[in-house]
Amino acid sequence: MDKIPILRMGNFLLVTIQVDLYDRLALNLEADLVQMVSKTNARGVLIDISAVSIVDSFMGRIIGNIASMSKIMDAETVVVGMQPAVAITLIELGLPLKGVHTALNVERGMDLLKSMIGTTEEEPEEEDDDYLTE
Amino acid sequence: MDKIPILRMGNFLLVTIQVDLYDRLALNLEADLVQMVSKTNARGVLIDISAVSIVDSFMGRIIGNIASMSKIMDAETVVVGMQPAVAITLIELGLPLKGVHTALNVERGMDLLKSMIGTTEEEPEEEDDDYLTE
Repeated sequence: MDKIPILRMGNFLLVTIQVDLYDRLALNLEADLVQMVSKTNARGVLIDISAVSIVDSFMGRIIGNIASMSKIMDAETVVVGMQPAVAITLIELGLPLKGVHTALNVERGMDLLKSMIGTTEEEPEEEDDDYLTE
Repeated sequence: MDKIPILRMGNFLLVTIQVDLYDRLALNLEADLVQMVSKTNARGVLIDISAVSIVDSFMGRIIGNIASMSKIMDAETVVVGMQPAVAITLIELGLPLKGVHTALNVERGMDLLKSMIGTTEEEPEEEDDDYLTE
């Protein structure tokens, strides 16, 4: 598998990382994500890492890269679903994921994104839910 | 990896299948999904198979099983993101995925679920978006 699927949900993109990110997969993900942000006018990127049980400095760097790339494309990045052991490892490795927002789960991550980009919570997807699907 | 993550979004559960479903993984997914439906009172299950490029009768049967299990737990199942080649293969294999709803992408799948369970489209997540996160 050379691609991680990117799902569009309203103004946001959702990426679920379920496999180890080796070099090419990570580079593809970065490129695909930036393209999708551009194509869909997404304002936020949610990265779910609930299936990731082992984290290393490479993974930490990739997440940081994605957040920085999205940021200069005017989209915020929130990492959700981190396992407690992963949080422990990240801090012990000296990788506090600076510049990356985190939330406990997808729903809280969406709330955080909505509050960051200033969308009214009452009508989260109304403006382009139906017609701009790719 | 022995588990496929199940993400909760409002009334719905979202599963992204990115890897080949071998026996144990499929059984775990079935069990986890039924448990999550019960735990979260989910009314719909979205299964994204946009990363699946090869499909066989086993996969078709698992998806059918999940739909049947969800159905008797009072949740509808929608399969989204099917690649054209997969659709061709399924029909040529004689597996028309009976009893399973399909939609082009996650957004349309959500719309379909909302219309099936009769949620008002204007307030899709309001009732339990903030407080009932697991």
